[in-house]
Amino acid sequence: MAASSYTPANPESVFTYGAPQLKFGPGASDEIGYDLAQTGAERVLVVTDPGVAATGHPQRVADQMTAFGIEARVFDGAHVEPTDESMRHAVEWAREHGPWDAIVAVGGGSSIDTAKAVNLLTTNPGDLMDYINKPVGEGRAPVNPLHPLVAVPTTTGTGAESTTICVLDVLALKVKTGISHVRLRPTLAVVDPVLTRSQPAGVTAAAGMDILCHALESYTARPYTSYERKRPEQRVPYNGANPIGDMWSEKAMSLLAGSFRRSVHDGSDEAARTEMAMAATFAGLGFGNAGVHIPHANAYPIAGRVKGFHPDGYPADEPMIPHGMSVALTAPEAFRFTFDADPERHLRAARLLDPQAEQTRDPAEFLPAVLAALMRDIGIPGGIGAVGYDEGDVPDLVEGTMKQQRLLATAPRDVTEEDVAGIYTRSLSLW
Amino acid sequence: MAASSYTPANPESVFTYGAPQLKFGPGASDEIGYDLAQTGAERVLVVTDPGVAATGHPQRVADQMTAFGIEARVFDGAHVEPTDESMRHAVEWAREHGPWDAIVAVGGGSSIDTAKAVNLLTTNPGDLMDYINKPVGEGRAPVNPLHPLVAVPTTTGTGAESTTICVLDVLALKVKTGISHVRLRPTLAVVDPVLTRSQPAGVTAAAGMDILCHALESYTARPYTSYERKRPEQRVPYNGANPIGDMWSEKAMSLLAGSFRRSVHDGSDEAARTEMAMAATFAGLGFGNAGVHIPHANAYPIAGRVKGFHPDGYPADEPMIPHGMSVALTAPEAFRFTFDADPERHLRAARLLDPQAEQTRDPAEFLPAVLAALMRDIGIPGGIGAVGYDEGDVPDLVEGTMKQQRLLATAPRDVTEEDVAGIYTRSLSLW
Repeated sequence: MAASSYTPANPESVFTYGAPQLKFGPGASDEIGYDLAQTGAERVLVVTDPGVAATGHPQRVADQMTAFGIEARVFDGAHVEPTDESMRHAVEWAREHGPWDAIVAVGGGSSIDTAKAVNLLTTNPGDLMDYINKPVGEGRAPVNPLHPLVAVPTTTGTGAESTTICVLDVLALKVKTGISHVRLRPTLAVVDPVLTRSQPAGVTAAAGMDILCHALESYTARPYTSYERKRPEQRVPYNGANPIGDMWSEKAMSLLAGSFRRSVHDGSDEAARTEMAMAATFAGLGFGNAGVHIPHANAYPIAGRVKGFHPDGYPADEPMIPHGMSVALTAPEAFRFTFDADPERHLRAARLLDPQAEQTRDPAEFLPAVLAALMRDIGIPGGIGAVGYDEGDVPDLVEGTMKQQRLLATAPRDVTEEDVAGIYTRSLSLW
Repeated sequence: MAASSYTPANPESVFTYGAPQLKFGPGASDEIGYDLAQTGAERVLVVTDPGVAATGHPQRVADQMTAFGIEARVFDGAHVEPTDESMRHAVEWAREHGPWDAIVAVGGGSSIDTAKAVNLLTTNPGDLMDYINKPVGEGRAPVNPLHPLVAVPTTTGTGAESTTICVLDVLALKVKTGISHVRLRPTLAVVDPVLTRSQPAGVTAAAGMDILCHALESYTARPYTSYERKRPEQRVPYNGANPIGDMWSEKAMSLLAGSFRRSVHDGSDEAARTEMAMAATFAGLGFGNAGVHIPHANAYPIAGRVKGFHPDGYPADEPMIPHGMSVALTAPEAFRFTFDADPERHLRAARLLDPQAEQTRDPAEFLPAVLAALMRDIGIPGGIGAVGYDEGDVPDLVEGTMKQQRLLATAPRDVTEEDVAGIYTRSLSLW
């Protein structure tokens, strides 16, 4: 296990690994009716958002279930970037039209996370706020088992099909937070690359950077052995870097090396799309048990304080910085900052992501250089300056990052306000 | 995906992946009481065999549960190499002393497989024979869900903690067969390397060859894309070689390269034991979704027709050829036979297993040479001649192998009686 600046008195010796069952490949989404019939399900709720509903995939999945004697209804009111309000609306609808035996989410992370909340609150009593992480909510654990949840991602990025968390904005408090419990994890992930065919190049680029950062952040996370030994009741799904998370991350990075540029530049390249879907799944299976750190912590304020930026390939009706883009913008500088915690691991990651890249004279520059070259090639903006921030915004962004202590605690080094300010400042213009 | 001699008209495009949740590391077995309390369990059955019971681990696991309000009872009557008789005895005992809320298996593959049968038949009606694979049994699927099953392996080899099958001898028919259903898979695997400390060198060697063959056979198995497209109800847990199985297999082989010889030659090498436990788990997670082929098919008659062989490190009361040894004895020749189906993959496997080995002039010899060198170093007999078979036994062994069509169907080439006879004849004396 990697070197670390942490020296626990009684080091952790145990790590855990959990994952949904998986069905992967073109055509996999045609079999959901059969799979759910095996659980005895008779009434199934399909959760999606209006954009994905317009592709027809959610209704096709619902229709296909009737052959197995299942009555399926589509709820297409999931909000892209869910809020407490949008999730409560989904829960109320589901409670009113239930009971359900199983839930299917068809969509990106927003639909899958909304389905997790619906599953929780149609099987357990109370309100959203009872389960939201402390200090925003009560942080209660579910008392009842949840229904089977099938997650069918339609973007190649999120990883939400593998994770135990659902993320939402609490509007009144202007804070992004979540519900985190092992029972929220989908029971089955159905990854059908055919469903990602309609993804525009800009979405492939941004979502692909989310995949890449899932893999890189969990690969460079604080090793599980650098924590103090936990009691069983203290364990959380995010262990820090561990041998299984490392394996998924390495494989995801190799897949990205072969297919990321191709899938952005030629959306009709089926082989590249399938490899990107596989990379997304693998990275999800890794970070869901390891964790993410600085780039994801920075992504919250970068996306949340958006001014007037409108990215290619996304709906033009409101300004937004897509999640994967907001993660990517500070990644080169974040990994320059973490380099010293484990130089060998940073160099190996750079070589996995670009086996042809020439090593830089200063080894600490190698991974940042590989990332910047990739971001340029696939059309990611060249820093937070390019999406509308300037030096005067840095203190505000830093404040937003420092609220994400759950993520910063997974970084392989202690992270101070000054450190984060330096990362933001150097990320104003990356090239 | 690899080259193959199969050319399906409508190739499979989908593979599945399933696994238990995992808790890995020294001390992991101290937390089972907590983990089961989370499922609401109040009465738990611990299944083990007399040899493992004598180490005290099963009783310790049972005692530790009382702190969580769980009443746990140990059944130590699992038979090493379970039979229909031994499994029926276990089931009767469990039905008589139940009901149970959960089952814990502490031991090798025999205890874990016995626990799978007990779990099935304390949650579902009928007799063992109703569920045993056709044509020996009725091949029925369970109608009810099973209890949570925690598998705690005490040997580094079996992989039974990851798989959906339980293997047994049906005494009246003198045939080894099994029950195979996805619900048999343990819900949680607790892999605690501390429990393998008492394993003698001979057991580490034989069980390690089982790990190695799990990895190698699933890595060289017929690729999932070489099958005809299945309908969902035709899918089985064993997909053939697939990207996820490959990843686990490659990682398991790398771990074996670093620790197999060390763990046999120095049983007190904790780091090597931990890596062997990890290799066993990883190989199990791979082959449980890919499958095994010729060496495992040959292992059934090799072990089943044992004459007078007594291996080091095993009980001396009856002759036996340990499972891992019986798998290993024809492996070099089996992989010489499969070489042409995918030369690149066989060469890569040889390099993973021994990065220092010098490549042979004939590439088809490389993997067999690496395997034979390893087997010599760790004290595996030099062929089926060394465990008591001679040329006159070959037809009988071939007949036994040909009964394992379920396994032979996973081989990357068609396998005839003549092919198998050639493999056995050349395996009489390997060096």
